Amino acid sequence: MHLSEITHPNQLKGLSIHQLEEIARQIREKHLQTIAASGGHLGPGLGVVELTVGLYQTLDLDRDKVTWDVGHQAYPHKLLTGRYDRFHTLRQKDGVAGYLKRCESKFDHFGAGHASTSISSALGMALARDRKGEDFKCVAVIGDGALTGGMSLEAINHAGHLPNTNLMVVLNDNEMSISPNVGAIPRYLNKMRLSDPVQFLKDNLEEQFKQLPFFGETFTPEMERVKEGMKRLAVPKVGAVFEELGFTYIGPVDGHNIQELITTFNQAHQIPGPVLVHVATTKGKGYAIAENDRVGYHAQKPFDLATGKAYPSTKPTPPSYSKVFAQTLVKLAEDNPKIIGITAAMATGTGLDKLQAKLPQQYIDVGIAEQHAITLAAGLACEGMRPVAAIYSTFLQRAFDQIVHDVCIQNLPVFLCLDRAGIVGADGPTHQGLYDIAYLRCIPNMVVMAPKDEAELQRALVTGIEYTDGPIAMRYPRGNGYGAALADEGWEPLEIGKGEILRNGDDVLLVGYGTMVYPAMQVAEILGEHGIEATVVNARFVKPLDTELILPLAQRIGKVVTLEEGCLMGGFGSAVAEALLDNDVLVPVKRIGVPDKLVDHASPNESKADLGLLPSQMADTIRKTFFSQKTDAVRV
Amino acid sequence: MHLSEITHPNQLKGLSIHQLEEIARQIREKHLQTIAASGGHLGPGLGVVELTVGLYQTLDLDRDKVTWDVGHQAYPHKLLTGRYDRFHTLRQKDGVAGYLKRCESKFDHFGAGHASTSISSALGMALARDRKGEDFKCVAVIGDGALTGGMSLEAINHAGHLPNTNLMVVLNDNEMSISPNVGAIPRYLNKMRLSDPVQFLKDNLEEQFKQLPFFGETFTPEMERVKEGMKRLAVPKVGAVFEELGFTYIGPVDGHNIQELITTFNQAHQIPGPVLVHVATTKGKGYAIAENDRVGYHAQKPFDLATGKAYPSTKPTPPSYSKVFAQTLVKLAEDNPKIIGITAAMATGTGLDKLQAKLPQQYIDVGIAEQHAITLAAGLACEGMRPVAAIYSTFLQRAFDQIVHDVCIQNLPVFLCLDRAGIVGADGPTHQGLYDIAYLRCIPNMVVMAPKDEAELQRALVTGIEYTDGPIAMRYPRGNGYGAALADEGWEPLEIGKGEILRNGDDVLLVGYGTMVYPAMQVAEILGEHGIEATVVNARFVKPLDTELILPLAQRIGKVVTLEEGCLMGGFGSAVAEALLDNDVLVPVKRIGVPDKLVDHASPNESKADLGLLPSQMADTIRKTFFSQKTDAVRV
Repeated sequence: MHLSEITHPNQLKGLSIHQLEEIARQIREKHLQTIAASGGHLGPGLGVVELTVGLYQTLDLDRDKVTWDVGHQAYPHKLLTGRYDRFHTLRQKDGVAGYLKRCESKFDHFGAGHASTSISSALGMALARDRKGEDFKCVAVIGDGALTGGMSLEAINHAGHLPNTNLMVVLNDNEMSISPNVGAIPRYLNKMRLSDPVQFLKDNLEEQFKQLPFFGETFTPEMERVKEGMKRLAVPKVGAVFEELGFTYIGPVDGHNIQELITTFNQAHQIPGPVLVHVATTKGKGYAIAENDRVGYHAQKPFDLATGKAYPSTKPTPPSYSKVFAQTLVKLAEDNPKIIGITAAMATGTGLDKLQAKLPQQYIDVGIAEQHAITLAAGLACEGMRPVAAIYSTFLQRAFDQIVHDVCIQNLPVFLCLDRAGIVGADGPTHQGLYDIAYLRCIPNMVVMAPKDEAELQRALVTGIEYTDGPIAMRYPRGNGYGAALADEGWEPLEIGKGEILRNGDDVLLVGYGTMVYPAMQVAEILGEHGIEATVVNARFVKPLDTELILPLAQRIGKVVTLEEGCLMGGFGSAVAEALLDNDVLVPVKRIGVPDKLVDHASPNESKADLGLLPSQMADTIRKTFFSQKTDAVRV
Repeated sequence: MHLSEITHPNQLKGLSIHQLEEIARQIREKHLQTIAASGGHLGPGLGVVELTVGLYQTLDLDRDKVTWDVGHQAYPHKLLTGRYDRFHTLRQKDGVAGYLKRCESKFDHFGAGHASTSISSALGMALARDRKGEDFKCVAVIGDGALTGGMSLEAINHAGHLPNTNLMVVLNDNEMSISPNVGAIPRYLNKMRLSDPVQFLKDNLEEQFKQLPFFGETFTPEMERVKEGMKRLAVPKVGAVFEELGFTYIGPVDGHNIQELITTFNQAHQIPGPVLVHVATTKGKGYAIAENDRVGYHAQKPFDLATGKAYPSTKPTPPSYSKVFAQTLVKLAEDNPKIIGITAAMATGTGLDKLQAKLPQQYIDVGIAEQHAITLAAGLACEGMRPVAAIYSTFLQRAFDQIVHDVCIQNLPVFLCLDRAGIVGADGPTHQGLYDIAYLRCIPNMVVMAPKDEAELQRALVTGIEYTDGPIAMRYPRGNGYGAALADEGWEPLEIGKGEILRNGDDVLLVGYGTMVYPAMQVAEILGEHGIEATVVNARFVKPLDTELILPLAQRIGKVVTLEEGCLMGGFGSAVAEALLDNDVLVPVKRIGVPDKLVDHASPNESKADLGLLPSQMADTIRKTFFSQKTDAVRV
């Protein structure tokens, strides 16, 4: 049987181990070819091929429910659940999503793009099952990185307290999140993985024996026998943490041996209550290049399978915002030992790996733990440090309460740097950074800025470092800058709450924020071609908003357009509208931004086109809104 | 020495154990008298009197830093740090705060009102200390309830990975959060508490011995000796979970024996790296009535110390919103087994204890774990249940990402019931429920409603239960209703997105939301006395907003006032402003609500007076804003 013939995972049930291994080989091949061609998450999927095949062989997917943490490890799952034919469309507009989505397949039992949600959701399903008097299996598959996220541990605390609720947690332990894991839990898992567990404990015990007074240099045969017995007694210590927390622990099991996996899963299915199966996997398994660079091949741009090298860009591109951010931060940190860069398991994505390499004492990776990251930053700020927390806009949602309660209420100078703010492209709805303007500006004491380009990012970064009156946030997008000239030093800080006029015109006022400032200039150019002259303001700050600049302009020009790459509900445009109404400036306002709906995966430009956010579309919108009566002729 | 003479905690250092015990007695007495007179958190403080005295005897509070989790357990701390004289002003306007505040005392090293923040903040201070090359102690005091909050576990995972960072975590284990704790971690702690740990392990080991083949019915003396040795070997197992996670575990220690506490803390201060001291305390210690009802006396209204009974109200009051919510939910749940009420350790506060008592199968307490609560609810919804998560507005901030990522993106029918929305009074800034309108309405698929009174709450509750198209939220305040007539059954659901007109007038349109609808009617009455006739709309929904109702009224009347008990930045008034501008209704809008600043502790009415939110004040504001030229005379 070929993988392409599998349209339902239950088809695995009739296959021999040999056939399952062949299916696994085909999954790996298809996965590799697809990611090499289209780009995407490579290592996580390769690591769970056998785990997926083995697990599904033991389940009835018409009844049983599986929740996959994060979702980017679920590509083998996708290939076994009817998406083989469309798999080449991965992460493309209208194609297969890069994460799990309930609306994409009935086998995607719970969508996920963020980490640490799988145990909670599976437990919810299990509790529903029991209350309905039904009988099916609920399985959560979670990586060791995601296990350290607080919600996972909350869920384990709850599940471990419910001995009558059947729930299987499959721990996909590849010793990594995107980067090597941080923390005591991964270290504990690693200790169990490192060697044969029985052997490991025997070794450990041998040392302890030596310290006991009643064991001398020589042993009687009887004492040897007792010692062996003691070692056996000690064996259940493997997994003691999980056992103490109410789970039956099984493992570690070789995550690339299908027979062993099937045997283990079947054994685990027989055990009542919460069970944790510890599966040792290798990220990037079966593709040597990825196995040897597990950070680099977590995700990849399109690349040559033979060499593993990404195809060179056809033309030189400006550096990414993240890169400019990181390089500038490193330079600032060299001169200021109080600067501490903080990441929550996203060292490479945020660029903070550069800080780690250069100034490890000024770098902290807390693991997948955004809540802890922010309150830790608050603690650092209490002691006079300058914590700079670089976290994706979408992931910072996890720390909303910490921002309110620990940072803003105490008015502590924590600097939040929101990477991937705005439309993120192929990662889709779970990763869009669209809500941060709304969720940050409502909190007292918060300052929220957004640079118009990578050069202004440098200035905004200095601004945030130098601002010690309270919390401050900077949002910047995924992707490359505009090629703006970058300085190596001497960046001038922005004045808090002050925008700038980039262009003058009497017909309409365009107020752009962050990534929408350049597009606003393009819009102004297009409008100019139609005889409509626009003033363009770069607002720089949504809070405090530069009302001194904006209000008189709005009053004089009489037509206002706001442009933002964020949700329209409560966002930047609302801030401008509030200011106008609060100050009795009664002029029409057209707010342009992301409407109140989810933005699916696609290229950023495709998403923007769908949302009417391309400059030509926005120019059309403005003309229709404000100038439908006055066509070009009026201005001639 | 009398407690009143202690203005600096270092004064404890010169005292004998006997004197410290006397100080402890005085703290307990003062604490009891104060809470009995003014109301507040009783049990938590009584439980940590000796812990506080003992800990502070071993510290130098001019240098060392202590972060107290939640803060309501820190009243003894307050009495030892210069607030004795003012302690009778506890929780009163301009008086001593009910939680910790950095601006109240230099000894409040980290403010807290929410749970689970202490280890993260203390670790942040410790890391700053080491980077600065300084040398002082960092201590986090955390309750066993707060320990199960995800952020605590994230912090333990991080700290346990840093063997060179000195940090002491004092676990104040009173076996409770507000209610008895939920989960495997508290059960594990309890196991350690239950008896002498060595004895406990011996007992446990004895059973295991019996199952070993090499131990027969009879023992040789040599084997007895070996067995004793094995027991000693096993002793380090106490606290194994913490030890495996990198902490040195010490305990459990009697939390009411000052000598033992001092000895233990001093011992712990000598141990490098992260140390956890497990202190067994009794909530309400020293006040028998509170010891015997640890849930009831967590916090209390003013009460008679002799009997423990709250002073009777001088006049009958209508039932609280929480009570009406819970009673109605129980009735609905009786008829609909799919309804599952979820609380995060707030059974009594939300009233869900009534559901627990009546329909335990339809009740889930997840412990202090709001994130898990919401994703668990999403899992329940996937399986067709009707999860009703009753969580205070301020605590739901913890689950913001779960609301976005797990509920709204998947459009799952989870019903969020936000208790304590709006101004909360004596609990102060950490507990104000002011941001929920802004943080909920920006998320796609979310419906957000607020009833005007307790009778409409019943209808809103039915609405939420019956609405299965996606997520829906209801916000309602702390405190009592208006005495609106309550139905026992047959509640008519509200139409989604539809408001109602309560009063007609041509001069100004007042659009009230939730708790501000009755005040809007009062404002209208006052305006009427000045000859200004107001139309009053009860919006009911901020999302979807009833634009069909509001826009034509705004257009016709020409002056709009919005009234809300929430932050003005991005709140209800902004939603109305957005709708008006989006639809080219250019009329002046006065948004009344909570301005962009923190709201301190005070009675709700005092807070409202400070904010200009009393009906007479709002009427004045409206007259000044819109009718300053047209005085009464104009209308005569």
